[in-house]
Amino acid sequence: MSETENNYSRVDGRTPNQLRQIRITRSWQQAGEGSVLVEFGNTRVLCVASFTEGVPRWKKDSGEGWVTGEYAMLPRATSTRNQRESVKGKVGGRTQEISRLLGRSLRAVVDMAALGENTIVLDCDVLQADGGTRTAAITGAYVALAEAVEYAKANGILPAGKRVLTDSVSAISVGIIDGVPCLDLPYTEDVTAGTDMNVVMCGNGQFVEVQGTAEHGTFNRDELNALLDLATAGNADLARLQQASLAAAPGTTVVWDSANGTISEA
Amino acid sequence: MSETENNYSRVDGRTPNQLRQIRITRSWQQAGEGSVLVEFGNTRVLCVASFTEGVPRWKKDSGEGWVTGEYAMLPRATSTRNQRESVKGKVGGRTQEISRLLGRSLRAVVDMAALGENTIVLDCDVLQADGGTRTAAITGAYVALAEAVEYAKANGILPAGKRVLTDSVSAISVGIIDGVPCLDLPYTEDVTAGTDMNVVMCGNGQFVEVQGTAEHGTFNRDELNALLDLATAGNADLARLQQASLAAAPGTTVVWDSANGTISEA
Amino acid sequence: MSETENNYSRVDGRTPNQLRQIRITRSWQQAGEGSVLVEFGNTRVLCVASFTEGVPRWKKDSGEGWVTGEYAMLPRATSTRNQRESVKGKVGGRTQEISRLLGRSLRAVVDMAALGENTIVLDCDVLQADGGTRTAAITGAYVALAEAVEYAKANGILPAGKRVLTDSVSAISVGIIDGVPCLDLPYTEDVTAGTDMNVVMCGNGQFVEVQGTAEHGTFNRDELNALLDLATAGNADLARLQQASLAAAPGTTVVWDSANGTISEA
Amino acid sequence: MSETENNYSRVDGRTPNQLRQIRITRSWQQAGEGSVLVEFGNTRVLCVASFTEGVPRWKKDSGEGWVTGEYAMLPRATSTRNQRESVKGKVGGRTQEISRLLGRSLRAVVDMAALGENTIVLDCDVLQADGGTRTAAITGAYVALAEAVEYAKANGILPAGKRVLTDSVSAISVGIIDGVPCLDLPYTEDVTAGTDMNVVMCGNGQFVEVQGTAEHGTFNRDELNALLDLATAGNADLARLQQASLAAAPGTTVVWDSANGTISEA
Amino acid sequence: MSETENNYSRVDGRTPNQLRQIRITRSWQQAGEGSVLVEFGNTRVLCVASFTEGVPRWKKDSGEGWVTGEYAMLPRATSTRNQRESVKGKVGGRTQEISRLLGRSLRAVVDMAALGENTIVLDCDVLQADGGTRTAAITGAYVALAEAVEYAKANGILPAGKRVLTDSVSAISVGIIDGVPCLDLPYTEDVTAGTDMNVVMCGNGQFVEVQGTAEHGTFNRDELNALLDLATAGNADLARLQQASLAAAPGTTVVWDSANGTISEA
Amino acid sequence: MSETENNYSRVDGRTPNQLRQIRITRSWQQAGEGSVLVEFGNTRVLCVASFTEGVPRWKKDSGEGWVTGEYAMLPRATSTRNQRESVKGKVGGRTQEISRLLGRSLRAVVDMAALGENTIVLDCDVLQADGGTRTAAITGAYVALAEAVEYAKANGILPAGKRVLTDSVSAISVGIIDGVPCLDLPYTEDVTAGTDMNVVMCGNGQFVEVQGTAEHGTFNRDELNALLDLATAGNADLARLQQASLAAAPGTTVVWDSANGTISEA
Repeated sequence: MSETENNYSRVDGRTPNQLRQIRITRSWQQAGEGSVLVEFGNTRVLCVASFTEGVPRWKKDSGEGWVTGEYAMLPRATSTRNQRESVKGKVGGRTQEISRLLGRSLRAVVDMAALGENTIVLDCDVLQADGGTRTAAITGAYVALAEAVEYAKANGILPAGKRVLTDSVSAISVGIIDGVPCLDLPYTEDVTAGTDMNVVMCGNGQFVEVQGTAEHGTFNRDELNALLDLATAGNADLARLQQASLAAAPGTTVVWDSANGTISEA
Repeated sequence: MSETENNYSRVDGRTPNQLRQIRITRSWQQAGEGSVLVEFGNTRVLCVASFTEGVPRWKKDSGEGWVTGEYAMLPRATSTRNQRESVKGKVGGRTQEISRLLGRSLRAVVDMAALGENTIVLDCDVLQADGGTRTAAITGAYVALAEAVEYAKANGILPAGKRVLTDSVSAISVGIIDGVPCLDLPYTEDVTAGTDMNVVMCGNGQFVEVQGTAEHGTFNRDELNALLDLATAGNADLARLQQASLAAAPGTTVVWDSANGTISEA
Repeated sequence: MSETENNYSRVDGRTPNQLRQIRITRSWQQAGEGSVLVEFGNTRVLCVASFTEGVPRWKKDSGEGWVTGEYAMLPRATSTRNQRESVKGKVGGRTQEISRLLGRSLRAVVDMAALGENTIVLDCDVLQADGGTRTAAITGAYVALAEAVEYAKANGILPAGKRVLTDSVSAISVGIIDGVPCLDLPYTEDVTAGTDMNVVMCGNGQFVEVQGTAEHGTFNRDELNALLDLATAGNADLARLQQASLAAAPGTTVVWDSANGTISEA
Repeated sequence: MSETENNYSRVDGRTPNQLRQIRITRSWQQAGEGSVLVEFGNTRVLCVASFTEGVPRWKKDSGEGWVTGEYAMLPRATSTRNQRESVKGKVGGRTQEISRLLGRSLRAVVDMAALGENTIVLDCDVLQADGGTRTAAITGAYVALAEAVEYAKANGILPAGKRVLTDSVSAISVGIIDGVPCLDLPYTEDVTAGTDMNVVMCGNGQFVEVQGTAEHGTFNRDELNALLDLATAGNADLARLQQASLAAAPGTTVVWDSANGTISEA
Repeated sequence: MSETENNYSRVDGRTPNQLRQIRITRSWQQAGEGSVLVEFGNTRVLCVASFTEGVPRWKKDSGEGWVTGEYAMLPRATSTRNQRESVKGKVGGRTQEISRLLGRSLRAVVDMAALGENTIVLDCDVLQADGGTRTAAITGAYVALAEAVEYAKANGILPAGKRVLTDSVSAISVGIIDGVPCLDLPYTEDVTAGTDMNVVMCGNGQFVEVQGTAEHGTFNRDELNALLDLATAGNADLARLQQASLAAAPGTTVVWDSANGTISEA
Repeated sequence: MSETENNYSRVDGRTPNQLRQIRITRSWQQAGEGSVLVEFGNTRVLCVASFTEGVPRWKKDSGEGWVTGEYAMLPRATSTRNQRESVKGKVGGRTQEISRLLGRSLRAVVDMAALGENTIVLDCDVLQADGGTRTAAITGAYVALAEAVEYAKANGILPAGKRVLTDSVSAISVGIIDGVPCLDLPYTEDVTAGTDMNVVMCGNGQFVEVQGTAEHGTFNRDELNALLDLATAGNADLARLQQASLAAAPGTTVVWDSANGTISEA
């Protein structure tokens, strides 16, 4: 990113390479074996992990477990109300697409043999939407997933020493706004972005998913590279915040300070 | 209620005529024209009001508005996960029944002519369920509804002086546990109750709905009367708490103390 | 009810505390193990009981049986035609709500252990609707249920001496018309009633369900009491008519005379 | 049909060319503009006509009317219970096929220009099924249709002198049982028939629909001719019975005597 | 057919008793155990046979196999685009009706005991529609079915000498155009035909299905006979073409020349 | 790509950077305004363009057109049969995801203002599937789209000189097989690929979509770069083949020779 680009001032005052304020609250809810309220600015997603013994039929007697996810949005998470998908009688394409992405992303860091024949479902419900809901969902779901694994170990369902999670996983959106590559887009930037990319990465810096789309215009290889650089840095910060959250006590809110790039408890 | 009955100690230590701790947080979310996070003990419901100009086709040119509600539960609001109704492709009977109750209850306190040709939809999504979700939904939805009416007045959509809400409305569950009529049942009591009743009332003490069911056994007129007495007292307390919430600043949490029967801000 | 109220003359000439002409025809149809055509004035419901050995999966090996019901309306049972729910592709909220009420009401008088691992389904299809369809359905379904139990005993599926039905169950509607509490509302009264209540009771006078609703206005405790008194008397009459029906030969129509309160065969 | 064949004695004692007892009750129900309870032996179908002013969008401003039909079966019309199509969430192939046949058959005798921009829907619901439900439905629906046209004329919606119905229409099943062509098959014959044919004809002896099917085995041209002969005679008798029904007073039941081939009122 | 009628010149220049050009290409696709691209003039249907070991639950342990079919049309097979049935969320009545006809027609020539507990599904997808799609589907599906049986024998799933198919089966449409009975109707004739009939026959000249419909007007016995004569001749030609196709090498296209009534390879 | 990698011999004998044989047949079908049968090796997709005047409601009076796509697979396009989505009653997540990708990809090269208020729908139905069905669909759909635009110009619906398509668009899959980055994966490679990426590009070399997924393992920046290089070269070849197809006469098949990288007519 050039000097000039880093001086570009965004709608909410951030520089192009700043994350929004990110907040992760562990054990926000008691019903699930893991639960997280994750906030990327005004985007607020409740991620709940359900741990159940046994696996779907097609995994029976494989010795391996299964992890999947479901993403959904409350009808008035957005500035105008959307009809409920349950009332429509079908799940929309966007919802299914994100649910599939969520499942694949989490499975990338799970050792299915170590999990044994157990299933973990991650429900990510968007309570308030301001861009980046799928990336917040993946980032929060990882922490809920880790809580569910801890729960299983604490309750003797999984051996205490077993390494079930091979790494952490997080996601961030990047896009080109007014020609400038920017990190972590709020809704107003998202709708105007020429190119929009969601990048899912492990804690070790490897890529899990790269989904770049150009509904308005197209993008070249240099732009693609600039976006990948931003996402790599952003995901590294998210990985540190996830670690801080899991190190804190259940119920704690850890906060990423947008301006200073520091982590603290709320 | 006899002296003996009032000495009956419940699962959670309450006396038969005590409410649980009740918490109402106004303006919990920014997308809706009104929003409330309401908690009855561990039951936690997000109520969001969507105000839109215009009415459904069958109300066009009537000069009157419309108010309706939709109730739903997140898949892991409960101790075991339920399949999403969107994924099943249909809304279950229980969900529809409660949505219809919610709509009727709120309409009981709305002057549709004063509302004019505007529509308010109340979405009540249960984030965590521990009994009494429909009564929490109605109680919280009233506060969100009042916020939406305030919003419309503040934005010149409704005349400032117009009395759109004729009263407040709240709801509470009552039931017979081990032969003792009890107020505000948590899930463990709800499933064992011989008789279970939900009572919706206005701030002025009039009844809006009385729904008593005996899945196990039946009940006599005296038991019915005892339950109605408990519910009348409980709803009067809820009405005061709703008033306190609306008198407080947006974002404030008001709390009903179960032991002392006092109201404070969190 | 005051002297004045009892002089109030209703749309169809009845006094406030009179039932309509009620007709119950046993064994109206040959396919089911029990079947009843029940008429409350112009409301006409066909109730058919299906007895099958075995129970739903969640009841397997419990030693107990299961009883459930489904309510539906033919498309032109009403004054204007409604689209079929099969064509719409979903069962409406009202239909599901009444089906659930029907099942709960019947289960209140069945000794599930005595029924053994057998299932009885009651299909109540409204052929013509003029108010009180759900109460007619419950009242007729009980007689069809009793026929199905008789059938099972006659065919050696259940021991002859076993007491499977612990009591009878019936239902009646009550409501406040022009300020006067009235029994058994036809459609024209039903739509104008300020308050409308359906009361399900056993032959012994105990309550099974009380569902009171005030879509227009609200109601106080005295009104509630007056409605419960009317319903108690009405259900006592229906219980006697059910007994007369079951005492008559299959195919017989027993008739409740509205004016004299007498029972005869048609 | 040979001498020998006519001596063949069927399951229910009829000769091959005899109809079952057929009963048509006009104005059986009050909600529809026309209604008929039609019985072919134990098969019992309620046919209700709904007359509405206006036509579907694709017929607007054509000056012509529209007639359509919907066939359905109650869940326990048959010897074992079938799941409701509304509960399944979709209309089965057989139901749709018969509904389409019903509509086409009735339209064959309607002068759409004479009907003007009005719609008549015929709902045929099988209350009890013992073979030939689709043929009973068509035969009964014609009488209900004629009642609805009479209603429209009596109420000044259609000019009194207008000839809207150009003829009557009826239907009968025929099939080959044990090698013998037979008329009007009950369920037990229907399931064993090598070939099964439904023949829809006008009062004037013209064919509207011929649907012959050989699920077991195949049939030759001679057999086809024998079946068409039987059906022609059967439909001629049904046409006379329909005329007798429409000549009788509303509410009357006219009966075709199977043994003597005579018509009387019940 | 009279001399005059045979001089009648049709829209596409054929005489009333001529088939269109018919093309059958065996093994058009590699995924299925049998596959055929069949063309009746511009009508083009892809028929794919899926052979699987095992039978549906209701056929288990019967020692018999099962054959069924599914018919569908691509959205733009026709001159204007139709919405996909998958997107509508339900299969239309016409589609279901033809799928059922397809299955029954094929089962007429299968010895289910000889097939053993195996299932063959015939998927017939219309790629381009110009009338007669269901008759082309049946005619092509038979050839794909024969390929699938050959496949099973070649792979030792069925004994090589077993006679599984008892005969061939084909279908053709006939109808009355401008009063003239005509064979093999293209779309423009189909929509104007007073009477339209689809006739399914075996190679031995026996009838399997006769479905005659008169949406416009009605038809008499003489017309019915003339149509059956035409169909009998047409099906005999189709049977010879099917034999030629199966005698040719996989991948070969055999062609029926409309003008000369000769068969050749393309 | 290293020297070693280019010597890697794939399942089907290709080198890592070779496309399969690609065939594009213009105007394969007559119903649509454009139609293409596209083959990538054994993958065979029928792409049909439907041009209609007018736009969806939300585009009315915008002066702009709309382009969208629907992808689907015939039930036996694959080695085992899949249930039809129409029969299941819902469109699966994968189908919706690809349909959305298809629409976005095509819109990237359409000047909506130049298209005016007209709509083009691209239906891509997979007749046979062997990996890369979505990339074949996009590549073929562009040619069908170009045909539909030509049709509109030839018929005076669009001005002859208007530049509606700003560029061509094509897509190709790439993935890492046994650690070697490979181009254009057939099914057997697709299921074993550690990382799988679909890359949509314009004729000018700009990116439209980049979708990289690592269900097994993860990938680093170098691997990502190698895959993008392969895809860039592959798409450049596809763009030339598309141009050749559009330059050939309707009905012509143009073929990309895998070994020599040359284009010829079949």
